[in-house]
Amino acid sequence: MTDKPKAIILLSGGLDSTTCLAIAQSEGFETYALSFRYGQRHSFELDSATEVAKQFGVVKHHIAEIDLRAFGGSALTDADIEVPKSRSQEELSKGIPITYVPARNTIFLSFALAWAEVLKASDIFIGINALDYSGYPDCRPEYIEAYEKMANLATKEAVEMGRKLTIHRPLLNLTKAQIIARGLKLGVDYSKTITCYDPDSEGRSCGQCDACQLRLKGFAVNNIADPIVYQKDK
Amino acid sequence: MTDKPKAIILLSGGLDSTTCLAIAQSEGFETYALSFRYGQRHSFELDSATEVAKQFGVVKHHIAEIDLRAFGGSALTDADIEVPKSRSQEELSKGIPITYVPARNTIFLSFALAWAEVLKASDIFIGINALDYSGYPDCRPEYIEAYEKMANLATKEAVEMGRKLTIHRPLLNLTKAQIIARGLKLGVDYSKTITCYDPDSEGRSCGQCDACQLRLKGFAVNNIADPIVYQKDK
Repeated sequence: MTDKPKAIILLSGGLDSTTCLAIAQSEGFETYALSFRYGQRHSFELDSATEVAKQFGVVKHHIAEIDLRAFGGSALTDADIEVPKSRSQEELSKGIPITYVPARNTIFLSFALAWAEVLKASDIFIGINALDYSGYPDCRPEYIEAYEKMANLATKEAVEMGRKLTIHRPLLNLTKAQIIARGLKLGVDYSKTITCYDPDSEGRSCGQCDACQLRLKGFAVNNIADPIVYQKDK
Repeated sequence: MTDKPKAIILLSGGLDSTTCLAIAQSEGFETYALSFRYGQRHSFELDSATEVAKQFGVVKHHIAEIDLRAFGGSALTDADIEVPKSRSQEELSKGIPITYVPARNTIFLSFALAWAEVLKASDIFIGINALDYSGYPDCRPEYIEAYEKMANLATKEAVEMGRKLTIHRPLLNLTKAQIIARGLKLGVDYSKTITCYDPDSEGRSCGQCDACQLRLKGFAVNNIADPIVYQKDK
């Protein structure tokens, strides 16, 4: 038992959420990690999340099982839809890509909200960022502000007990390069993280999907080699 | 294929959501019913939801599997917490009861939002009401308004395609008696519905939990016998 305030961290096992977890701990929170088996194309990210959670010594790591494949509508939950590769900067900036998963952050935050209420935690961390991102609507500041407002009207803890919930988004205005720099300063070991939308059967990243491109650029700007294995390295 | 607009109806198999489904159909929507196996104490309500969905000929009835027992914190998902019985009117009006499930409506609506986006539906129906209810924070008008605002910032359909989502709450300002009257006028057969928080092993309602008390009062005001079986009837 500690006197530290508790925080839930949405942990995908990627670079952003791992940095987010490091930031939450550096700010003195007792951390609870929440991941989802939601029907994503590959489960390497859950292996990563499990490794990362262990490395950081979170109090508890919960993997919620929710099947979003039943609804479909995304390249990340439907193996028949191809993940776009090697898109140009111009293509990247054009609209919301097919890797968008309908209402994903809304669903993830809602589970975090439930867990926060039971733990009597007032803090949730989410590693979204509005720069160097893929154009997802549920990664924008106005979305998170509206979510926070709704959440503070939704629960017994907020409404009856006056426990105001804060959704921390410490990466919101950072570029991918700045996120990596921040994490390295906090001692994050990025070798356990995975970012790729479409790794091969051995979990090696493709290096060409939007997510890999942003990640590689971020390491390049920091003049540091990305410690994970890419398919071209094999 | 029809030209009707599509709507998702959150269907618990209870009196309110069944009436809500009847209203959605009477308003000309092509209906999709969404239920949840969330770790509730009993699955009779899913049997009811399945029966009701069949009776109404919905296009699809989806039961999403999500285990909220992992978080706990409610008499409805934790068999070790007792469901309160035979509470007085005074007790009923005092605070949010232990049958409240943390963030339940927020989670349910978030799945409905995902499905609505994939179906390109602009309408979700939820059978909450602010009168004759149990004091749950996520059944209040200000909560639903905040949810709707958030939802319209959350999805590709809303943000990129301009499809504005409406969360219909047709029962919001009706008493339980008025809900029943409305349903009867629409020809609803309430014999398939179940409202009880704590039925016996054969699915017979207890008649004494908050939900049963409100339901029984609603039928009594309408001078109509509740068509379901109660334990005292056995």
